[in-house]
Amino acid sequence: MTLDDSWFTEIYDEQGAAFSLSTTSRLHEERSTYQHIEVFETRGFGRLLTLDGMVMLTGRDNFIYHEMMTHPALFSHAAPKKVLIIGGGDCGCLLEVLKHPGVERADLADIDERVTRVCEQYFPELCASNDDPRAFLNFADGIKWVEDAPGGAYDVIIIDSTDPVGQAARLFAQEFYAACFHALGADGILVVQSESPLFHGELIHAIAGRMRGAGFASTESLYYPQCSYPSGWWSATMARRDGRRHWFRESDAGAKRFATRYYNAGIHRAALTEPEFMAQGAGRPDAPR
Amino acid sequence: MTLDDSWFTEIYDEQGAAFSLSTTSRLHEERSTYQHIEVFETRGFGRLLTLDGMVMLTGRDNFIYHEMMTHPALFSHAAPKKVLIIGGGDCGCLLEVLKHPGVERADLADIDERVTRVCEQYFPELCASNDDPRAFLNFADGIKWVEDAPGGAYDVIIIDSTDPVGQAARLFAQEFYAACFHALGADGILVVQSESPLFHGELIHAIAGRMRGAGFASTESLYYPQCSYPSGWWSATMARRDGRRHWFRESDAGAKRFATRYYNAGIHRAALTEPEFMAQGAGRPDAPR
Repeated sequence: MTLDDSWFTEIYDEQGAAFSLSTTSRLHEERSTYQHIEVFETRGFGRLLTLDGMVMLTGRDNFIYHEMMTHPALFSHAAPKKVLIIGGGDCGCLLEVLKHPGVERADLADIDERVTRVCEQYFPELCASNDDPRAFLNFADGIKWVEDAPGGAYDVIIIDSTDPVGQAARLFAQEFYAACFHALGADGILVVQSESPLFHGELIHAIAGRMRGAGFASTESLYYPQCSYPSGWWSATMARRDGRRHWFRESDAGAKRFATRYYNAGIHRAALTEPEFMAQGAGRPDAPR
Repeated sequence: MTLDDSWFTEIYDEQGAAFSLSTTSRLHEERSTYQHIEVFETRGFGRLLTLDGMVMLTGRDNFIYHEMMTHPALFSHAAPKKVLIIGGGDCGCLLEVLKHPGVERADLADIDERVTRVCEQYFPELCASNDDPRAFLNFADGIKWVEDAPGGAYDVIIIDSTDPVGQAARLFAQEFYAACFHALGADGILVVQSESPLFHGELIHAIAGRMRGAGFASTESLYYPQCSYPSGWWSATMARRDGRRHWFRESDAGAKRFATRYYNAGIHRAALTEPEFMAQGAGRPDAPR
């Protein structure tokens, strides 16, 4: 069976799989200095943002990713006041970070201002906190931003990057994690999006290894569903300077004063649980059979 | 972008989404009395079994579904000896059930013998326990099988059905759950595959309601990833006659003597955790935006 041209399809060529969404119109298209930006209206997933033909987010399911990239890290720090988001130009992570009343300043550093401007227009719900006085949007190279940051400047750093290909590959390197380590306080936490457990389990182990190699005392991964990303199953990997693995402010998370749709204290604990094939260190469930 | 004819595509029309796998050959095709059975070789997912054009399983990711449809239910019963599987003609659930040394008899009742014969040929790894002396393969109507069963005949009943359309819709009805209730012992457990939390959250709540309406004292849902099923996120819903919600033999699960690739005691506990939108009883995260 073939899908006609009204469907947007992302092919995961290495995996021999593809995911498609039925679109009703293309609302926006441009080639910025850095990438090809498109916004579609879809039939069942709200609006769809793609960069260079890859799904960045849909209106329907981005809440899971954005909540899991932020709240576990923020509740894993005793009192996060200064937060840095690298990438994340759609502002969905920024929105979630600023739900924490203790946060005093959230810097976002994304190289492509056009992504943010497009999202302000087509995903206003994600940009609802862009005018918060605690929000600082910086359109700059994320790696240079971290390298230039004073030592201990941040409590939490969130790497909301694209896949580790092209320019974004540098955001998955041990050198970059070492720069993050330096920019974090003594009990600082780094969290990175770390791809699909089913497709990239070995990468998840590699990321954790590079984090420890960069000086972090402990790492832990969080697993969660994400329909519109490859395999429908995604991960974030956290690294801590102080090594308090799996500790988080569970009672604060249970008593949070803000709304979420996926995250809660129980989900935080649950998401930390390793599937058996990851716990065994295999990084992949098995050769296909 | 369109996919050429070498791709198998399943369209989730109501959702405006589709999932595709790159195939290299079609190994088998037949129209049985009940359905259209096909087996493909894929490029990245091992072999693919479809019924009436819908993905039943792939060699790469079926382990998650089969482990989560069986081990949580069996470890939630104090001493399961007699197990019934309705549907499940691919024998993947049967394989997992028979890993439990305490199981004395496992009946499978699937209406279509051809599915099992095809799987014996193309998915021998799933059928490895079909010759176990404790395994009884019955090619019969599952509803009639349950209705004819003596009261209290089973400790665990597993409903490994297709989606709730056509004939399979009867397997999601309160009347059927009432028949299962009768066929279970006083501490018996029913578990059913209950579709996608993202796409069918309201159905998950409805299934639980029907189970309680049929007499079960408590229900609980389990959430897990399943790449090749709609949305990549799936669920099973359990019902208990004795109402011991969330109780399971955690130390037995932790000390299990058989291999799994997804399930472990921690995953069991984690899978029981409700995402916030399900905990709030909404059944859907939000209208698409």
